[in-house]
Amino acid sequence: MIPTITVFERSPDGGSGHARDMPVRWALEEAGQPYHARLVSFRGLKEPAHRRLQPFGQIPTYEEDGLVLFESGAIVLHIAERHAGLLPGGEHGRARAIMWIFAALNTVEPPIVEHEQASYVEHGQPWFCEERLSFLRDRIRVRLAQLSCRLGDGGWLDGAFSAGDLMMVTVLRRLNGSGLLEDHPNLAAYVARGEARPAFRRAFEAQRAVFLASSAGE
Amino acid sequence: MIPTITVFERSPDGGSGHARDMPVRWALEEAGQPYHARLVSFRGLKEPAHRRLQPFGQIPTYEEDGLVLFESGAIVLHIAERHAGLLPGGEHGRARAIMWIFAALNTVEPPIVEHEQASYVEHGQPWFCEERLSFLRDRIRVRLAQLSCRLGDGGWLDGAFSAGDLMMVTVLRRLNGSGLLEDHPNLAAYVARGEARPAFRRAFEAQRAVFLASSAGE
Repeated sequence: MIPTITVFERSPDGGSGHARDMPVRWALEEAGQPYHARLVSFRGLKEPAHRRLQPFGQIPTYEEDGLVLFESGAIVLHIAERHAGLLPGGEHGRARAIMWIFAALNTVEPPIVEHEQASYVEHGQPWFCEERLSFLRDRIRVRLAQLSCRLGDGGWLDGAFSAGDLMMVTVLRRLNGSGLLEDHPNLAAYVARGEARPAFRRAFEAQRAVFLASSAGE
Repeated sequence: MIPTITVFERSPDGGSGHARDMPVRWALEEAGQPYHARLVSFRGLKEPAHRRLQPFGQIPTYEEDGLVLFESGAIVLHIAERHAGLLPGGEHGRARAIMWIFAALNTVEPPIVEHEQASYVEHGQPWFCEERLSFLRDRIRVRLAQLSCRLGDGGWLDGAFSAGDLMMVTVLRRLNGSGLLEDHPNLAAYVARGEARPAFRRAFEAQRAVFLASSAGE
């Protein structure tokens, strides 16, 4: 059965692949698994039909054979467990790949998302100020330096490409254009290596096509 | 082989069980798996020996038979996969329990941690103000209302207690004393139900004993 995911009808990222359907699409492409994408409007996210699938009113969801999942990390892991190519065969390597999914989402991403919110969502709030953005950028820099040190000269975080790299590259891509990645050439190259994968390109073009179609009538 | 975890020599939470060794200890207790706890000082977190285990300089780590893991979510999942009682047997239920681990850490926790940082770490910063704390509390309230709606009258998030509940209760406990949980009696009862589990109690006392020992010489 072909799984169905939900995606933004019109992504607020303008088709740059930072919405959370992107890692799910990428994982499905790596797995060679066809899928349907169901478009959801911002209003639709709040409606009972979507809330029954996703209690927090977010995308993506994943539906397959009566199973309904949400949380991009959980969906990527589920896909990785059912298809070859996204988790190593050995038990230890598998556990470490899963560890990097969590590290991407829980240790590397939080200061990046907080900086985005401080820059955009909270613009105009009384506490908005350049000092706060600078403080948050420093928190991002600390994480990038630590990650760069661990990655070293390696092509991927733990040998072969895994779902952990897929999620880490997804998180780091949020920094594209910020100039922060460029302080660590090995991290910039790591992101470029992920973005060069054919599966990434297919996933990227698919989400971009949805955004372009939604804007075509204007 | 008995696994070894790392924990704060002297937890900044004063032994209230909010450090990230707590869900790992709790999972090990639910699993009936004895473990060693190695104490790490704040200075030790920055030293090369610890950074080789944990590139971000955090606790906990988990070592067993040559496997080294970090990230509390990944460690809890690893324990849950190797022992009975923390993941349902069926494939769909198992995937949903893992989904709740991610939802706890990636959707429910971020505004809670951001509020903690805004209240404590950023106290005295130029952008510190009551309006910002109020804004963040509103973000927490949105998540709690959504979670309360999904939990409904259920004892646990998806039938039987799972690693997903273990992580969600761990995250919600950070709100103890804030008054926010009390807006949703079903969530307050859910947290109390988790805290009443014998495995939780043993884990809580173990982490508290470490803190009390570290303070005894003062």
